[in-house]
Amino acid sequence: MKKLVRLLTQTLCVAGLAFSQAPPQGPIVVSPEVTAEKKIIFRILAPKAAGVVLQAGDIQGLPKGGPQLVKGENGVWETTVGPVTPGSYRYRFMVDGVPVMDPRNPAASESNNNGWSLVHVPGFEWQDAARVPHGAVASVHYWSTALGRHRRMHIYTPPGYELGKGKYPVFYLLHGASDSDNSWSTVGRAGFILDNLIAAKKAKPMIMVMPAGHTSASFGAGGMNRAIDEFGEDFVKDIMPYVETNYRVLTGRKDRAIAGLSMGGMQTLNIGFSHLDKFAYIGVFSSGIFGGGPRPGGAAAPSAPAVSPMEEWQSKRSAMLDDAKLKPGLKLLWVATGKDDFLLKTSQATVEMLKKRGFQPVYQESEGAHTWLVWRKYLNEFAPQLFQ
Amino acid sequence: MKKLVRLLTQTLCVAGLAFSQAPPQGPIVVSPEVTAEKKIIFRILAPKAAGVVLQAGDIQGLPKGGPQLVKGENGVWETTVGPVTPGSYRYRFMVDGVPVMDPRNPAASESNNNGWSLVHVPGFEWQDAARVPHGAVASVHYWSTALGRHRRMHIYTPPGYELGKGKYPVFYLLHGASDSDNSWSTVGRAGFILDNLIAAKKAKPMIMVMPAGHTSASFGAGGMNRAIDEFGEDFVKDIMPYVETNYRVLTGRKDRAIAGLSMGGMQTLNIGFSHLDKFAYIGVFSSGIFGGGPRPGGAAAPSAPAVSPMEEWQSKRSAMLDDAKLKPGLKLLWVATGKDDFLLKTSQATVEMLKKRGFQPVYQESEGAHTWLVWRKYLNEFAPQLFQ
Repeated sequence: MKKLVRLLTQTLCVAGLAFSQAPPQGPIVVSPEVTAEKKIIFRILAPKAAGVVLQAGDIQGLPKGGPQLVKGENGVWETTVGPVTPGSYRYRFMVDGVPVMDPRNPAASESNNNGWSLVHVPGFEWQDAARVPHGAVASVHYWSTALGRHRRMHIYTPPGYELGKGKYPVFYLLHGASDSDNSWSTVGRAGFILDNLIAAKKAKPMIMVMPAGHTSASFGAGGMNRAIDEFGEDFVKDIMPYVETNYRVLTGRKDRAIAGLSMGGMQTLNIGFSHLDKFAYIGVFSSGIFGGGPRPGGAAAPSAPAVSPMEEWQSKRSAMLDDAKLKPGLKLLWVATGKDDFLLKTSQATVEMLKKRGFQPVYQESEGAHTWLVWRKYLNEFAPQLFQ
Repeated sequence: MKKLVRLLTQTLCVAGLAFSQAPPQGPIVVSPEVTAEKKIIFRILAPKAAGVVLQAGDIQGLPKGGPQLVKGENGVWETTVGPVTPGSYRYRFMVDGVPVMDPRNPAASESNNNGWSLVHVPGFEWQDAARVPHGAVASVHYWSTALGRHRRMHIYTPPGYELGKGKYPVFYLLHGASDSDNSWSTVGRAGFILDNLIAAKKAKPMIMVMPAGHTSASFGAGGMNRAIDEFGEDFVKDIMPYVETNYRVLTGRKDRAIAGLSMGGMQTLNIGFSHLDKFAYIGVFSSGIFGGGPRPGGAAAPSAPAVSPMEEWQSKRSAMLDDAKLKPGLKLLWVATGKDDFLLKTSQATVEMLKKRGFQPVYQESEGAHTWLVWRKYLNEFAPQLFQ
């Protein structure tokens, strides 16, 4: 009898699939497969393809241009990488030059204008899903008066918050140029990292707000600049007021933190030092005042600027940079960059400038480059220092 | 000066992209493009491909096998569909037989074991993002004692909930076989639909819980059956207790609703009628007791069963089906199916059976087939009837 029910439901199931979406065809492909030795096997069925390459920027030690996958007789292409450092990795296949998200993997991580497949390699307890109380990571749509359209952000509420008691400090956490507001909670593991820190009593329970830092889908024609300026307005006029109106948050300077990586670090510096009276904690990951150091690759600037971007930045914010009363209230100014990061000199120059202006940045140069491997670690080191 | 800053930041931006991820190459492709006439233009850059087909099951009137895209001189393939009914549509490209999510579109909707690109065509106010207060849709990880692993669900909290006052009724909303726990809040627009209903005072503010109905990545070897049985245990042992422990919810029978589409409708019937004392509202969208009607396509069953799946289902649940005391507490038993749905007979047979057992199902046959076009409408009709 059980067998019959199974047969019938399977028939219906297949019929239902065929009706709404195509059923899988050809050999059953498992991808990605993470082995006990922390290797990752990537596979894709593409019998007609001439060549398949793996793109996975954060996985170290891959050949330049990504490893070529090898075609099996069944039309399945395959490559094995690693052992890799535990963590989450974005990847995609280039199939005859077309970027292809893994057709067998529903896990994804959004960038500003495209998507990446996502694989998690467990092994670092502090970022894995553990048997601890979990918070919630919400997708929240708000109307941006600054930009005149609906925008989305992600908001982490810690374990216990949804029961309705107490007010919490707020940590604004900004993403980079290749990211979206979903990046910190997908490839960045921010929710799990906070869950684990809070369970171990290493970090205070806090609200963590992860806004969308881009204001346009394109990078060209001043995209980055526009992102930095327009986002600053959206942040101050809409994001902060939305959070403070709709969530139970503390609203003193000592109850607010802001940090960001790469482009988000530049945005953090702009917002933080334009509103220094509002933030007691500022974190800058793999970033600085862009244009403040030598250009990447060491190439000379096309022409010597009369006023450097760093000077321009300082002159814009000089009232708050020079206000001695604001300095004691800044409890932590934390800057960290990987030794192999292409923005290393930019970070160093920014730290020097801030020291000259009378601040006391805590500066760290860690192992690593401009990748999520270091940004997850920075979050894990920065969050415990907040609101203590 | 502004120009110089822009130049420098652009250089850094491109360098940063090159460092972490490949920059877009070739012509700038915009896809999807939604026109004012509600047409959708799909484009993909694939200079080496021999053929590209669009898959978009819910878009009506497409040629069987999907429309072929036409290749332009720049290597960009293109097709225009519509005008279409307003709503969200999942789609992907088949490029020489490989399923490809749109490389230019970060919006996605997860299925059980793959992903789909997502396009929204505005025009139905009740499901669009409107200038009304918005709730939050959270991704929540919980430990399933029934399944021995972490699982994910999505939970909608209505506008005002995060401020911490009051208790709310709970609506459990289940997805179909081709879906994941993120489907109702992506292609299903559930958050926006509830936002709009609540703003118009047509629906009571409520918590809406959208669990993961699948318990395995594969459909073969009893996948659907396993999903239905194992999920029932997960739901009762873990999901309901998690929600009632971690959220401010009312816990009377009259404060709980459950509904689902297709596979989720079958799960709703199983859970609802195994725990009839716990639910006052039951909704079944495009579903019924699988095996209870003629098989899809009208083919005869391979052999006449001694006991039909419908009879087996009834005998399992007869204590609650026959308990006259439980019937008045069931305030709404709502069943709806499209006239072109392949499960139409299954729905009809289930309604007949429930009537024979002394229930008073409200039954509706609407225009439409087994697609998200009807399920969004059903949610919009069902939710206002809850907790009144």
